[in-house]
Amino acid sequence: MRKILIIGAGKSSSYLIKYLLEKSDTENLHITVGDLNVENASSLTKQHPNSNVIPLDIFDAEARTTAVKTADIVVSMLPARFHIEVAKDCIAHNKNMVTASYVSTEMQELNEQVTSKSLVFMNEIGVDPGIDHMSAMKVIDSIRDKGGKMILFESFTGGLVAPESDNNLWNYKFTWNPRNVVVAGQGGAAKFLQEGQYKYIPYNRLFRRTEFLDVEGYGRFEAYANRDSLKYQSVYGFEDIKTLYRGTMRRVGFSRAWNVFVQLGMTDDSYIIEDSENMSYRDFVNSFLAYSPTDSVELKFRHALKIDQDDIIWDKFMELDLFNPNKPVELKRATPAQILQKILMDSWTLNPDDKDMIVMYHKFGYELNGKKHQIDSTMVALGEDQTYTAMSKTVGLPVAIATLAILNGKITTPGVQIPITKEVYDPILKELAVNGIVFNEKETTYLGYNPLHL
Amino acid sequence: MRKILIIGAGKSSSYLIKYLLEKSDTENLHITVGDLNVENASSLTKQHPNSNVIPLDIFDAEARTTAVKTADIVVSMLPARFHIEVAKDCIAHNKNMVTASYVSTEMQELNEQVTSKSLVFMNEIGVDPGIDHMSAMKVIDSIRDKGGKMILFESFTGGLVAPESDNNLWNYKFTWNPRNVVVAGQGGAAKFLQEGQYKYIPYNRLFRRTEFLDVEGYGRFEAYANRDSLKYQSVYGFEDIKTLYRGTMRRVGFSRAWNVFVQLGMTDDSYIIEDSENMSYRDFVNSFLAYSPTDSVELKFRHALKIDQDDIIWDKFMELDLFNPNKPVELKRATPAQILQKILMDSWTLNPDDKDMIVMYHKFGYELNGKKHQIDSTMVALGEDQTYTAMSKTVGLPVAIATLAILNGKITTPGVQIPITKEVYDPILKELAVNGIVFNEKETTYLGYNPLHL
Repeated sequence: MRKILIIGAGKSSSYLIKYLLEKSDTENLHITVGDLNVENASSLTKQHPNSNVIPLDIFDAEARTTAVKTADIVVSMLPARFHIEVAKDCIAHNKNMVTASYVSTEMQELNEQVTSKSLVFMNEIGVDPGIDHMSAMKVIDSIRDKGGKMILFESFTGGLVAPESDNNLWNYKFTWNPRNVVVAGQGGAAKFLQEGQYKYIPYNRLFRRTEFLDVEGYGRFEAYANRDSLKYQSVYGFEDIKTLYRGTMRRVGFSRAWNVFVQLGMTDDSYIIEDSENMSYRDFVNSFLAYSPTDSVELKFRHALKIDQDDIIWDKFMELDLFNPNKPVELKRATPAQILQKILMDSWTLNPDDKDMIVMYHKFGYELNGKKHQIDSTMVALGEDQTYTAMSKTVGLPVAIATLAILNGKITTPGVQIPITKEVYDPILKELAVNGIVFNEKETTYLGYNPLHL
Repeated sequence: MRKILIIGAGKSSSYLIKYLLEKSDTENLHITVGDLNVENASSLTKQHPNSNVIPLDIFDAEARTTAVKTADIVVSMLPARFHIEVAKDCIAHNKNMVTASYVSTEMQELNEQVTSKSLVFMNEIGVDPGIDHMSAMKVIDSIRDKGGKMILFESFTGGLVAPESDNNLWNYKFTWNPRNVVVAGQGGAAKFLQEGQYKYIPYNRLFRRTEFLDVEGYGRFEAYANRDSLKYQSVYGFEDIKTLYRGTMRRVGFSRAWNVFVQLGMTDDSYIIEDSENMSYRDFVNSFLAYSPTDSVELKFRHALKIDQDDIIWDKFMELDLFNPNKPVELKRATPAQILQKILMDSWTLNPDDKDMIVMYHKFGYELNGKKHQIDSTMVALGEDQTYTAMSKTVGLPVAIATLAILNGKITTPGVQIPITKEVYDPILKELAVNGIVFNEKETTYLGYNPLHL
């Protein structure tokens, strides 16, 4: 039997483990799952005869090395910063490796060793990064194959709540790490290309410069710019592209309301709020508003943000119970972002029967024989429950498929890499489609970057 | 003759040198000015017989030590980060020292050595910090002496253009380091106390939360919060104070217009604008606005910032020639803040006959015998020309007076210190008043922090 070692049995490992176990008889696989939390890992392997669970502390070098040594291929589902020690073990013991994380500088530096040992270190093969790379490169390669020249690429992904569970005024629940949602967009201006011009959006304008996207059967979404739109410019061969934009999708109206938190400073994670443990939610809000001997926190809030009394945004804040003087913050020495996260988790935590949704939208603009064309490509994945979520499916399935493809010698080009070559994306996209992850591609009129569709 | 070594003959040394030379015969002083730029230093000493100028490179340890050794007291007018080596020399050779800079951590760490050698290292004795400490502590001590309890302290300083030279729509010109003006308020939320409540203002709201201040004979000003309002809370003995606020003064309307730059991201100093050297001013502005195939940069700007066509703010931007497609930025690899600074310097550089102005405003609230009282204290200093500016006067005079007072044994308490004790502020404020720097103190009705004066 071929031995697959999966390190880390967190939220995104459920589908990965399920898929590989389902294939384990026909493909002759044995799956070892290593995690600090044996119980949780066991709940995913369900005592399948082709599996075992081992307690694994990633910082225990001996245990880690022993586990790597006995495997034929290693999948690291750890947080990105922990991959590097596993990667070094894999090099030392000649094992291929798969992760769903961004290639770190340290990982990239291993490329020469990995290549010289003819190993495959596949990274960024989850969802954003992952499925976005593969689905985009397939269309881009097909455009180039017929002689087209790419002039526009926009790519959007959103981790949202499924329509059937979409029952709050923000049309949003936390389907992933809440902290990342609260601090999203911080750390510098968003930078991208629009019709040949570099454009910059500071954090305080990020949630006011959204664009709309319609997905058939799912209605309208909005998207705000990612900080890193130009990150893959050279990787995708987009040196001469006119428009290059990557964004995050939300339901329409989310960003305008979220911007209120940004404006008030409630998403700031850089300093501690004095005496945070003894504050109420109302006190927290009031700390961002001027003192008044007479005016209510509500009126100061409305006035500061110029919110009319009939503005629908107001109900969103009421729903969060933001002005409650009796709800305690309780967190000690907390930053504004930590307190806001707590307030949001009261309202945005998934109910046991809630389902999540991953939405992806690509726009490809190209020139062919002097004419401009556009292809729009969309994908929607829905979760089944809170274990087999859309997030775990879109992250775990491509990881699982890639792992098997490497094991079966279908992906052989060595090196530290991401899934942008036909050798990689073709078999994986086909298998993803079999599992219900399908891109709906259609030709549309070329619109370019033209927000009003003039 | 007593020998005073002044290191650094920059903008703020003119009055310092002038004052000490005027006193040099009666006080038996010899002034040595050390600077890399001998010519500039000589233009300030004017070959006065009690002076000499030496070329001095602060990084030349031997030259620096030699100069310190031969002096009786050392004044460092260098940028704050360069004081520490001079300070170490002063300790080694038992010399007192005076600076106008904030006490750095490194400087504070010398306190034990300085004290054990009975030396006086006087810092923060210019203007903000300096005159503000002294004028405030004088009033605070007098309130406490009569049994009053401080409940409010607000302190504001502005470096502005004198009324007679105030001829642009921003009522502002660069009278000091332009870069500090462009990046003012960045780096974290402003934090202060209002009526016992901690309040926080993020950078993107800083210039919209101003308060008004009227100075007799000079009309109305506005002030935005400094980041560090609580910095001197314990130093001033304000552990139980209700309101503690420090701010920067501008003429009314400046901040609302400046906020437009903040909102667009033009004050950001953290990243490089692509191809900045080949941009026009118009291109620069456009890089912060969405692409449009049809709309003008002007309309996009007005729309993004919601500026009505009859809003007086608009003329301010027109005055800066912000939309000019023919004015080149020219700066290579420049940040937004650097480009904005260049654009502003076209309009806000002092003319040869322009004069500057320093304005200071303190509010002291206190309780005495169960009643609340308030004292407002204001000071205005006007420059004479571009050498003997209000800035150089308010920085240089207190430094000069303190230097002489230490030399004459009137200030003797040893240690690394700032001017907050009666021993220090009393003789200095008296001598400042002789030189025209006078605080106008008056009792007013206690208003507390009450923006509408209800």
